[in-house]
Amino acid sequence: MSPRTAIQQETGRLHEPITAEGRVLHDLLSAHLPGVREAAAGNDRRGTFPTDVFAGLRKDGVLGATVPEELGGLGVTSLHDVTFALLTLARADASTALALHMQLSRALTLTYDWRHGPATARPLAERLLRAMGAGEAVISTGVKDVVRGGVVTTLTPDDRGGWVLSGGKTLVSLAPVATHFMIFARLTGEDGRVRLATPVVSRDEPGLTVLDNWDGLGMRASGSVDVLFDRCRVPADDVFLRGPLDDQPPAALAGQTVSSINMLGIYAGVAQAARDLAVATLARRPAPPAGGLSTLVAEIDARLYALRSTVAAALADIEEAGQDLEGDMDERGHRMMAPFQRAKLMVNQLAPAIVADCLTLVGGASYSAAHPLARLHRDVRAGAFMHPYTYGDAVDYLSRRALESSRGE
Amino acid sequence: MSPRTAIQQETGRLHEPITAEGRVLHDLLSAHLPGVREAAAGNDRRGTFPTDVFAGLRKDGVLGATVPEELGGLGVTSLHDVTFALLTLARADASTALALHMQLSRALTLTYDWRHGPATARPLAERLLRAMGAGEAVISTGVKDVVRGGVVTTLTPDDRGGWVLSGGKTLVSLAPVATHFMIFARLTGEDGRVRLATPVVSRDEPGLTVLDNWDGLGMRASGSVDVLFDRCRVPADDVFLRGPLDDQPPAALAGQTVSSINMLGIYAGVAQAARDLAVATLARRPAPPAGGLSTLVAEIDARLYALRSTVAAALADIEEAGQDLEGDMDERGHRMMAPFQRAKLMVNQLAPAIVADCLTLVGGASYSAAHPLARLHRDVRAGAFMHPYTYGDAVDYLSRRALESSRGE
Amino acid sequence: MSPRTAIQQETGRLHEPITAEGRVLHDLLSAHLPGVREAAAGNDRRGTFPTDVFAGLRKDGVLGATVPEELGGLGVTSLHDVTFALLTLARADASTALALHMQLSRALTLTYDWRHGPATARPLAERLLRAMGAGEAVISTGVKDVVRGGVVTTLTPDDRGGWVLSGGKTLVSLAPVATHFMIFARLTGEDGRVRLATPVVSRDEPGLTVLDNWDGLGMRASGSVDVLFDRCRVPADDVFLRGPLDDQPPAALAGQTVSSINMLGIYAGVAQAARDLAVATLARRPAPPAGGLSTLVAEIDARLYALRSTVAAALADIEEAGQDLEGDMDERGHRMMAPFQRAKLMVNQLAPAIVADCLTLVGGASYSAAHPLARLHRDVRAGAFMHPYTYGDAVDYLSRRALESSRGE
Amino acid sequence: MSPRTAIQQETGRLHEPITAEGRVLHDLLSAHLPGVREAAAGNDRRGTFPTDVFAGLRKDGVLGATVPEELGGLGVTSLHDVTFALLTLARADASTALALHMQLSRALTLTYDWRHGPATARPLAERLLRAMGAGEAVISTGVKDVVRGGVVTTLTPDDRGGWVLSGGKTLVSLAPVATHFMIFARLTGEDGRVRLATPVVSRDEPGLTVLDNWDGLGMRASGSVDVLFDRCRVPADDVFLRGPLDDQPPAALAGQTVSSINMLGIYAGVAQAARDLAVATLARRPAPPAGGLSTLVAEIDARLYALRSTVAAALADIEEAGQDLEGDMDERGHRMMAPFQRAKLMVNQLAPAIVADCLTLVGGASYSAAHPLARLHRDVRAGAFMHPYTYGDAVDYLSRRALESSRGE
Repeated sequence: MSPRTAIQQETGRLHEPITAEGRVLHDLLSAHLPGVREAAAGNDRRGTFPTDVFAGLRKDGVLGATVPEELGGLGVTSLHDVTFALLTLARADASTALALHMQLSRALTLTYDWRHGPATARPLAERLLRAMGAGEAVISTGVKDVVRGGVVTTLTPDDRGGWVLSGGKTLVSLAPVATHFMIFARLTGEDGRVRLATPVVSRDEPGLTVLDNWDGLGMRASGSVDVLFDRCRVPADDVFLRGPLDDQPPAALAGQTVSSINMLGIYAGVAQAARDLAVATLARRPAPPAGGLSTLVAEIDARLYALRSTVAAALADIEEAGQDLEGDMDERGHRMMAPFQRAKLMVNQLAPAIVADCLTLVGGASYSAAHPLARLHRDVRAGAFMHPYTYGDAVDYLSRRALESSRGE
Repeated sequence: MSPRTAIQQETGRLHEPITAEGRVLHDLLSAHLPGVREAAAGNDRRGTFPTDVFAGLRKDGVLGATVPEELGGLGVTSLHDVTFALLTLARADASTALALHMQLSRALTLTYDWRHGPATARPLAERLLRAMGAGEAVISTGVKDVVRGGVVTTLTPDDRGGWVLSGGKTLVSLAPVATHFMIFARLTGEDGRVRLATPVVSRDEPGLTVLDNWDGLGMRASGSVDVLFDRCRVPADDVFLRGPLDDQPPAALAGQTVSSINMLGIYAGVAQAARDLAVATLARRPAPPAGGLSTLVAEIDARLYALRSTVAAALADIEEAGQDLEGDMDERGHRMMAPFQRAKLMVNQLAPAIVADCLTLVGGASYSAAHPLARLHRDVRAGAFMHPYTYGDAVDYLSRRALESSRGE
Repeated sequence: MSPRTAIQQETGRLHEPITAEGRVLHDLLSAHLPGVREAAAGNDRRGTFPTDVFAGLRKDGVLGATVPEELGGLGVTSLHDVTFALLTLARADASTALALHMQLSRALTLTYDWRHGPATARPLAERLLRAMGAGEAVISTGVKDVVRGGVVTTLTPDDRGGWVLSGGKTLVSLAPVATHFMIFARLTGEDGRVRLATPVVSRDEPGLTVLDNWDGLGMRASGSVDVLFDRCRVPADDVFLRGPLDDQPPAALAGQTVSSINMLGIYAGVAQAARDLAVATLARRPAPPAGGLSTLVAEIDARLYALRSTVAAALADIEEAGQDLEGDMDERGHRMMAPFQRAKLMVNQLAPAIVADCLTLVGGASYSAAHPLARLHRDVRAGAFMHPYTYGDAVDYLSRRALESSRGE
Repeated sequence: MSPRTAIQQETGRLHEPITAEGRVLHDLLSAHLPGVREAAAGNDRRGTFPTDVFAGLRKDGVLGATVPEELGGLGVTSLHDVTFALLTLARADASTALALHMQLSRALTLTYDWRHGPATARPLAERLLRAMGAGEAVISTGVKDVVRGGVVTTLTPDDRGGWVLSGGKTLVSLAPVATHFMIFARLTGEDGRVRLATPVVSRDEPGLTVLDNWDGLGMRASGSVDVLFDRCRVPADDVFLRGPLDDQPPAALAGQTVSSINMLGIYAGVAQAARDLAVATLARRPAPPAGGLSTLVAEIDARLYALRSTVAAALADIEEAGQDLEGDMDERGHRMMAPFQRAKLMVNQLAPAIVADCLTLVGGASYSAAHPLARLHRDVRAGAFMHPYTYGDAVDYLSRRALESSRGE
């Protein structure tokens, strides 16, 4: 058979890592799985963060996995391998995977900033990456403003050439152990135009408060708390300045995709865990399953296969598009976001359906707060709320993209 | 990024050919697409076979595409590329793709027989492959006995060391232009045990009758007629002898998979054609689509993406398993059949749903016998009837496989 | 048990007629079912209208079933019983039921015009109803303009106090045997405002041409042809004048509902016919069905039960709302249209899914153009194209209605 | 319109009560809804039983609603009205409705025993009903043996003509306030054959222990605890003796249906509550919903309509069959169980799907442990575990019934 092209060489199927660095990450992570598994039920019940687990992951370098080797990390760049790592971790505990996702995905976008970002952004990106690589920085990201009182998180110039950050963010996963926070804020430029900025704030900064208020339906160990900023000072060099709020180019879809696509691995892992548990339960029963249950087993396996295949294909498409830095950067953004959103729609249909059918297979015993399937049932629902996009926005985006592409052909 | 492993090198995503030979096939085929497209509506309406199209394909070597180069063919071995070729062809006409599938898949299994089969099978396989490579042989396969009168197609020894074939087969696609027929027959051995045999019968053989009786709901141009055998003589050398009918080892699942998996490309192509037609129709309308239609467009694109990804992943899994000739051949059979059946279940759910939603998008105009979507709606339903397996058998197979694997872990 | 209220007395479950008049209709119709069944396959194949069947139905008074007794009809007023009659007929042939629906539903709305319409409309309604009751008038309705050339069907005043009709209508079911055509036309009033009008044109009228051009994917015996009007004269008394085109009040939703809701019985009948055929096929097989097929049977029966129950409930809700002529007529319109649209969405999901699963149950034999299930598969798809509404418009209507009701509470 | 038959007079559509007694129940219950609503969140969080609510319901006679008037109850006999009452209550709190269901359904089957049961059963049934009617007895039923240690709950004769009960039951909803327990037990007859018996045990009985161990995924306020029996004495007159365990006639399906069908109202109520909450949330937003959300709203309303209609139709079918005490009692059993199971399959598909889509409509805010939609999401899943039947058994039952009916026609 003739050799495959470069394009095919990036394609995996979420069976195993496809790069050497990814395999290192996978092996490091695997050593922690028994501990993660053991801590999962208690953390879920109490809504507590797996602080010990993260101490271990930091020690072993897992928290620097996606930092370039030159900057002290493991140098994992493959989205497939990051997603596969999160899938593997989520089979043990989805909350832990969600928290780890914050750190791993952040280093991926910072690496892009470091390599390809504007000159003003590179030193900050490098500094953060070096700290992540050294196990010194754990970075949590705040996107969504806290709902109470219509707070808008804003960055304003102080009188010494730096900035002041005020407001608050919600659903800031990983916050309980974060050393730094990257915060999406609004900034009114000299021209009166509102711009996006992403200041980086140290946890020690006076005025920053990490609440302990996460009490989710699921993902209860992810530490997705609120973080408040009461006139926090931010040095001039600690801010990424982005473009005008109302004129974000499609090129920016690329970073949003890389920030979030890896989360699909978590829901694949949840579905896989539910399936394995349910099938093992049936396999232990003396009698073969009734016809209706056989049908559920077959359909679950078919849908899980589709789920993993679809995520793997999206990762490959996105990685291929992402490597093309010479062409139209707006089109590159769409070429990354569109497969992400298609895969996300399917994951959000398939994963909860698989888990629900697994509860049906196992029967009433699974309807206990403490049963692992009950946890998976609560955890898997989080997929519907991942950004980008909400369901309504995803429909708008994908249908517009379909029609525009059709007209452009 | 580090180099990928051999495994990844076989993975595509049904976007394009992944081998040089596959690209040659794709290019040859592409030249015929306008003619296929033009002939499709008329052949569908009348239920006639695209004889001219196949004359052209034969002339250009397409009918020998999967014959090894040493034996005069193009040497396409990638299941991905065969499936992608059928997908491409099915976007123009599914019936034509179904007929071509018979020839291309046959050469794939004959190539296995030639390379890895028992010594007795190799010369016959080579002879047939050379004839296919030279454009002299077009081989149709008959699996299912005609229903009328409970016929069982049987092979019995004649008095001259050869065989006599009697019975009849139904749904023998490609038959209108076939030069030879490979027929699944029963043979009672000297020990009284019923065995499987596959005689190869020339079209010219006295006693062989190709009926002109195909009148399907869809796939109307595929020439899926009945072929009858009234004491046809078959030389001793023209028979593949298989094992006992009631003791087919799981190893045999491999050949069944290779024979049929490529058909999934056809239904992917049908779904893609319906989608493109429907989206283009919406794109031409002056007003943007209503909310309900936007939702359908987004969901169609998500499901189509999942469909193609799932088929591509199954092809990669199957190719990987198929190349492992050193291990347990029974396990190899399961490793090929299980992903095929999972993908097939999904294709049979997703493809008809996509086409149905496309009719809804286009509206009442598509509810005309002559409308291309009406044809696609009839064609796509054939997927439910592909062997192996029926829905009931697929459920049995996959649920048994899941439970056995779980117990074996 | 205490007596039920008047409201409950109108509720049936599509098991049997619930009024004495409905039972008469049902009995009359039942006598024709063998003939309908016998003619169905041939008419489907050739696309011919069951003219003989309709001659028989006319002779027996079925075509006047929904005409008030005072005007010579059977006096069936129950929407449930009309829908049940169409369901019964559709089990034998859906096309015949679709054509009969035109006549039966027309007499229902004309009866409303006769009893409750404006004084100007009553004499025309009475004249038409008497002719329908006497078996002299068969009325087909044209709603949708022919697509070719952007025709708009218009009514203009002639110089003698009458009108001239020009244009053309498509999908005019029942036209092959219609004696009169009720045509939705536009009329520009003296104030320059476009109004709706419904002239009634006799088939003999010079300038009226009934084409023989119906060639649908399904419903092939329904005679849903085009009818063209080349300056047809219409007497002043033969026109129903409606309000301004751009200001149709919600009250008008009532008539649209009564005109169309009965069609849901047709798709219920198609699903029931498919189910009975498939289950009977399984019941004749010696072995019990495999697990996957058992599951399909159970799910089919559950969905069919839901389909019939949902249609029955919508009919009861609509009948209840329809009888309230004292309240807000706009709200009455919504109270009729909303349950119709909810039921229609469900029917359009459930009925095609049931039929598709029945094909899977029966297997490859059903994939023949001549197989009854193949016909049902083509016929059932017509449901998606029934007006009102298209899928997009139904989503808009129902979501707006939900939000407005929620705000109004 | 002509008068409807008796059959139609029993049909409602889950809009409102259809008997005078049902209306009394509904009015009594309505007065408690604010209190139920207020207590729901706290009881869910803590997993505590709404003891105060039940004290109020007892005081107002709600706990005797389905006891015949002659025996001191409200005399509600309509399954529709009991189900509608539970639907109404479940809109406020599903757990409370589940607990009340135990009492109301028990009085319904006891009433059957009192009126139509064997002479030996009538006095016990009467005694219990009188106590329920007087507000003195609250009866919880134990069906499923506790899982730990493979306990089988058994009844053995004591030496004084009475019985001894040992074992334990799980999922005994309403137990926290129950005064009596009806327990499914096994009894080995003198002929060595195992029979079913249902002893009634007072809460005060030495040896009876009500645990406080319910900790469900949902339905957390239903008090579905374990109850243990350590050689509890049961007087001879306090046992209902049923037939042999391995030869329960289909006639017994009737009682099982009446015992459980009312629960479908609970899931209808949960779905309705979720829908109302989600639509109200959208209605408060300033902008109209995006296309994808409009589609969800319309589909939710269509499915909810189907859900309620299907349950209402099943109730009417069951009530009609139940009143026929002259015919074949085994066929009567099937005529009750089959519509119940069809409706249950649909409810278990539609209700969780509706609630899940409501979470999507509301967005991330609903993914909090304390959000009402999160509670509904956990509660609604219980429907899959209701007996009879599990999914596997339902498929077996319904497919067998379909094939047997088809053969019998």
